[in-house]
Amino acid sequence: MASKKDPRTPAQIKLAKQLGAAIAEARKKAGLSQDELAYRCGLHRAYMGFVEQGRYSITVATLVQVCSELDAKPSEILDEIGH
Amino acid sequence: MASKKDPRTPAQIKLAKQLGAAIAEARKKAGLSQDELAYRCGLHRAYMGFVEQGRYSITVATLVQVCSELDAKPSEILDEIGH
Repeated sequence: MASKKDPRTPAQIKLAKQLGAAIAEARKKAGLSQDELAYRCGLHRAYMGFVEQGRYSITVATLVQVCSELDAKPSEILDEIGH
Repeated sequence: MASKKDPRTPAQIKLAKQLGAAIAEARKKAGLSQDELAYRCGLHRAYMGFVEQGRYSITVATLVQVCSELDAKPSEILDEIGH
């Protein structure tokens, strides 16, 4: 069964993947598992996995929330990935 | 008729309002109307107004897209509003 077509543009998919990878890196630096980070943010465990894989385009609010649990700055994460 | 209750947390609403105000400021600095910015981003005119009022929590992808039309950096806008 073909997977559902991703409605996002190539640029949006690339951004989501870069952002997901940067979040995963910050999470590992903070020594947290995906489960722990998801729990702290009140987000579903599977959702956090999809975010790190770039399969979801998160809101700025979710980025701010995740970063607050990782002691990282959203502006620094965006700067790191060229935005 | 009571307006629909906003499902977002006070912190998410505050962030959306700060972000909306910063986008409006950058738009005015770039000398664009809301209509022009919405058109360039391929977004609906009313949606852009709601974003600037903080009534929507936008995705990082939308922030990146809007900033690219305003020659502004998403990381700088987030840094400006304390994130």
